[in-house]
Amino acid sequence: MHALITDLFPICRSITGDGFRASLRRLSEVVPITLNEVPTGTQVFDWTVPKEWNIRDAWIADADGRRWVDFHDSNLHVVNYSIPVRTRMSLADLKGHLHTLPGQPDLIPYRTSYYAEDWGFCLSQRTLDQLPDGEYEVCIDSTLVPGHLTYGECLLPGSVADEILISVHSCHPSLANDNLSGMAVAAFLARHLSDHPRRHTFRFLFIPGTIGSITWLALHEAETRKIRHGLVLSCLGDPGPLTYKRSRRGTAAIDRAATHVLKEQGAHAIRDFVPYGYDERQYCSPGFDLPVGCLMRTPNGEFPEYHTSADNLDFVRSESLEHSLRQTLAIIEILEYDELYVNLNPKCEPQLGRRGLYDSKGGTAPPDFQMAMLWVLNLSDGHHRLIDIAERAALPFVTVRDAAQALRDVGLLGVVEESKTERSAVPVRSQFTRSVPPSPALKPSRATS
Amino acid sequence: MHALITDLFPICRSITGDGFRASLRRLSEVVPITLNEVPTGTQVFDWTVPKEWNIRDAWIADADGRRWVDFHDSNLHVVNYSIPVRTRMSLADLKGHLHTLPGQPDLIPYRTSYYAEDWGFCLSQRTLDQLPDGEYEVCIDSTLVPGHLTYGECLLPGSVADEILISVHSCHPSLANDNLSGMAVAAFLARHLSDHPRRHTFRFLFIPGTIGSITWLALHEAETRKIRHGLVLSCLGDPGPLTYKRSRRGTAAIDRAATHVLKEQGAHAIRDFVPYGYDERQYCSPGFDLPVGCLMRTPNGEFPEYHTSADNLDFVRSESLEHSLRQTLAIIEILEYDELYVNLNPKCEPQLGRRGLYDSKGGTAPPDFQMAMLWVLNLSDGHHRLIDIAERAALPFVTVRDAAQALRDVGLLGVVEESKTERSAVPVRSQFTRSVPPSPALKPSRATS
Amino acid sequence: MHALITDLFPICRSITGDGFRASLRRLSEVVPITLNEVPTGTQVFDWTVPKEWNIRDAWIADADGRRWVDFHDSNLHVVNYSIPVRTRMSLADLKGHLHTLPGQPDLIPYRTSYYAEDWGFCLSQRTLDQLPDGEYEVCIDSTLVPGHLTYGECLLPGSVADEILISVHSCHPSLANDNLSGMAVAAFLARHLSDHPRRHTFRFLFIPGTIGSITWLALHEAETRKIRHGLVLSCLGDPGPLTYKRSRRGTAAIDRAATHVLKEQGAHAIRDFVPYGYDERQYCSPGFDLPVGCLMRTPNGEFPEYHTSADNLDFVRSESLEHSLRQTLAIIEILEYDELYVNLNPKCEPQLGRRGLYDSKGGTAPPDFQMAMLWVLNLSDGHHRLIDIAERAALPFVTVRDAAQALRDVGLLGVVEESKTERSAVPVRSQFTRSVPPSPALKPSRATS
Repeated sequence: MHALITDLFPICRSITGDGFRASLRRLSEVVPITLNEVPTGTQVFDWTVPKEWNIRDAWIADADGRRWVDFHDSNLHVVNYSIPVRTRMSLADLKGHLHTLPGQPDLIPYRTSYYAEDWGFCLSQRTLDQLPDGEYEVCIDSTLVPGHLTYGECLLPGSVADEILISVHSCHPSLANDNLSGMAVAAFLARHLSDHPRRHTFRFLFIPGTIGSITWLALHEAETRKIRHGLVLSCLGDPGPLTYKRSRRGTAAIDRAATHVLKEQGAHAIRDFVPYGYDERQYCSPGFDLPVGCLMRTPNGEFPEYHTSADNLDFVRSESLEHSLRQTLAIIEILEYDELYVNLNPKCEPQLGRRGLYDSKGGTAPPDFQMAMLWVLNLSDGHHRLIDIAERAALPFVTVRDAAQALRDVGLLGVVEESKTERSAVPVRSQFTRSVPPSPALKPSRATS
Repeated sequence: MHALITDLFPICRSITGDGFRASLRRLSEVVPITLNEVPTGTQVFDWTVPKEWNIRDAWIADADGRRWVDFHDSNLHVVNYSIPVRTRMSLADLKGHLHTLPGQPDLIPYRTSYYAEDWGFCLSQRTLDQLPDGEYEVCIDSTLVPGHLTYGECLLPGSVADEILISVHSCHPSLANDNLSGMAVAAFLARHLSDHPRRHTFRFLFIPGTIGSITWLALHEAETRKIRHGLVLSCLGDPGPLTYKRSRRGTAAIDRAATHVLKEQGAHAIRDFVPYGYDERQYCSPGFDLPVGCLMRTPNGEFPEYHTSADNLDFVRSESLEHSLRQTLAIIEILEYDELYVNLNPKCEPQLGRRGLYDSKGGTAPPDFQMAMLWVLNLSDGHHRLIDIAERAALPFVTVRDAAQALRDVGLLGVVEESKTERSAVPVRSQFTRSVPPSPALKPSRATS
Repeated sequence: MHALITDLFPICRSITGDGFRASLRRLSEVVPITLNEVPTGTQVFDWTVPKEWNIRDAWIADADGRRWVDFHDSNLHVVNYSIPVRTRMSLADLKGHLHTLPGQPDLIPYRTSYYAEDWGFCLSQRTLDQLPDGEYEVCIDSTLVPGHLTYGECLLPGSVADEILISVHSCHPSLANDNLSGMAVAAFLARHLSDHPRRHTFRFLFIPGTIGSITWLALHEAETRKIRHGLVLSCLGDPGPLTYKRSRRGTAAIDRAATHVLKEQGAHAIRDFVPYGYDERQYCSPGFDLPVGCLMRTPNGEFPEYHTSADNLDFVRSESLEHSLRQTLAIIEILEYDELYVNLNPKCEPQLGRRGLYDSKGGTAPPDFQMAMLWVLNLSDGHHRLIDIAERAALPFVTVRDAAQALRDVGLLGVVEESKTERSAVPVRSQFTRSVPPSPALKPSRATS
């Protein structure tokens, strides 16, 4: 995944334009992604798809022709969505268009001006302080004209039409953690899932932040009803522990699955929904209120490298990316395997011993797998799903799931069919929920790119 | 307020009588208060309005005529509601009628005997210990005869008939914190509210403890249905932090408003309802179960000066009284401004930037006011009132209220009309909930008396 | 009780057989117990009543005839339910049938093989290590043939048919705490209750673990509907603090009563239900979900003596047994006296003073009994039972119960009749809930046996 990020890093992305398209094409080498184009001016709820922005060059030169700021050094140097400029001005006038981080004097900030036509440069405070008085030549060789907003989509059909949505904002320029890390994890997750049987249908969206999710929701309102669970992936490459931000609902299945996995894997943070952050803001707006949470390592704004030139290739780590992918898969595995079972022998315990499921020698406490069977039998009353049982029993979901499968295999457990959206009459699903533990199948392949 | 308390302090109040009437007349100089008279013998639920008690003098003199205890030194010296006495008796017999505080030997206790005809004196243990043996002459020049129970009322009509009740027991004699402080805060609160537009109708009751609230409830049972919120005010002048005792319901709007304000203002305590304390006992009896809480500083029985001669003018402080008044107003402000709004653009976020409500430069976290708008938009789904949103967002109510007003001004928010008791067809209320922040209007005027 | 346990200790009990019957006969000297016999082969839900097991002798002797292991030293030496054996074998072969506790080398473990026909011996690791090489003669003089499963029952009718179930597993051989302690407490509890008026009907079951409760439930399914509350008693003689394991429901009346009593009496632990432990596993299976909790001191598996020869007569203590009995009675007392009352004077407080229930001198805080009356009056709105009120008021149940009785005696409180199963038209119950505190009547008599 780190190699993929290295390839994507230099591209100047924005919420529209060729940099976004080029990035999607590179991701398509990992897993096939469809590019969709929405014309400028399309009305999407309260918003309008903006003009398309492209940029080729930008610089600030002094009277001697020395280039103090150059787009080719870092695409963060230009305020994203700057209109074209070619002029001369005094340092005093120029300063009104310059952005720095006085508290982090060596770093270039990341700034945008998507919805107010303006131009500007970002540079380090150190550079600003060195600028000699005098006149400067300023060039931004950009275009901002009617065109399209582009987004990428990867749809992986499952045995049911119920969908799991994975959404990643893919519009930031040279910022590695925010959000090349999310793009890489999503692409490799999609590749892995495409190679394995799936119960749910998976929809991956690679979209520009805010306007992208608003556009997709506005143009696919009917399809949103199929979304059963969703995850926004972002900032998954830094060395911090995982953070899960709950959906607006707070107790949706995705919230419980993510909480279960994060608890199992060690240090972590669980946060309540707030209407700020990434595209979960749109998915969780009250008119949709979709069960979409957000998985991150260190959240937006909480690492000093955030939205600066220090969010670079050194900041994201292979082991963090791999770990993020594994835990995302573990969350998905719960969503895939969670079921509502009923104990078919609900009066007293069944005699597990004669079915070979319980030690015949009495007198000692049972191991986890046997305890998991007792829990599944006791709580499978039509009101507790496997995730409920795992939480109540304080056992790993996989242990509870395997215990349920063993009980199902000997006819002690029946599944309550819930989904109304089966895609075929063929019981592909029972094939999927076979007793062979599916963990190896879902184990992520080693990431290579 | 302290000057008002200083004037009221020497008056010998009781649950009936001229001292109570004189106190109401003094309060009427701050805000007009109507005096109501209920005849002795009136049946009020399980109780009967008692005979009226008045007292002119009382003393204990030894054989030499030396007055060891004199009502004119402190009206606490007489057990409140003592029947008239004029007799001679030995020290041994007299002691059966004397009350002291052995653990606080310099203080005079406060004792009453409203419902059992009896007499007695309260004095310091120090004085008791000095009484020489011998015969004593005892005089209580009181009357206990059919008359009236008096209570004061101040009704401030609002734009709706829904009422906020403010109830203060006003029957204690020379005890400054319990409850001249509550009487003073209530009077100045009423004066302030009388000068400003009001949504709710405000009803202030200055009543004798227990029998007063029982009498009012018994005689105004139908009117209790208009009470939407209520506060008992007591012990608001001591130097301790504020304490709010929840209504019996525990989660009423008054409970949440008071909790919000107390959290915002610093050190405080929130307590669950208990059926002991002040008149909230009656308002919260199960047959009424009104949403009435109690605001205090240090609660009854928890300061050593409680119900002793040490609860005097030195014990109550101007800054405590002023602070209590300000916080009471802040609680009322929440009740006045709390609304149920609906987001009129519920699908995705509206574009606040083009309405001038959001910074056009992207890349940094929004300030509180913008966060408050995002919260209001996200949670205004018909299930969350402004106070809910303020609590969920951990933002001050005023910030959330102002954000809601800004959104309402640009047509993004609609108000859910709830009240069935509009007093007039004229939309006075929309005038009240104008976008101008009402804080200054509700800011307490400097207390002078 | 300790004397009773001393008598029972040497008897070799199992889930069937004459040792079980002999134990019930000894318990019958404390309180009459009916013996019930269920034939081998009876189908009980998913299980079958097993063959009856009896044993007379068992030993392991070396070639010199020296008996290294002898059943008459400790009946734990034989794996419970061992089939008859009389053979010679090498030490190596013999070891496949030997069970020790290497971590507790001086103790004999307790092992069973009820449902897999097998045989074996349990011995200390110390003895095993001393066994010389060579051939051994092995004898288990047991029978495992069709017969009966025995259980004991003691039914104490109350004024209502609603039942409180007390269940004790009585199948373990020479293990004093697990569960001769439970058997002794149950027998003395039954004897005590048999001497006093009862509201509920009490059903005591002395049963073999697991198969016993399954058998009783299968054969008395209709009767289970009468069970309103239930307790499994086990491990009640060790020196540890009391532990209550909640029923599956978690908030049943028995759970709240037990929690209340355990909090009142000092150090304790409250645990959530888990589907492992004693016969609550069966009572709380989802097809029954009876409100049955489990009262223990140190739980199964958590004391080092558990299921070893160290769980002997020295391990159980008279004071622990007595304390367990007293607290069990206190729990039952709550179940017996808990009522749903309604305040017949719900508007404002009634005037308790003129009924002699409240101090006529005002000015000081009321004592617990008066506070309890205020609480009962305030919360008796048809939604709060006495146990709710005691919990909310943080007062002992007995204080609240006595306060309710006092209020009932003066006509301020009415009882809401809930039970549909009155056994007689005679108001025996009002006789039971008389105002005389029933505590002395329910106080356990000194245990003697």
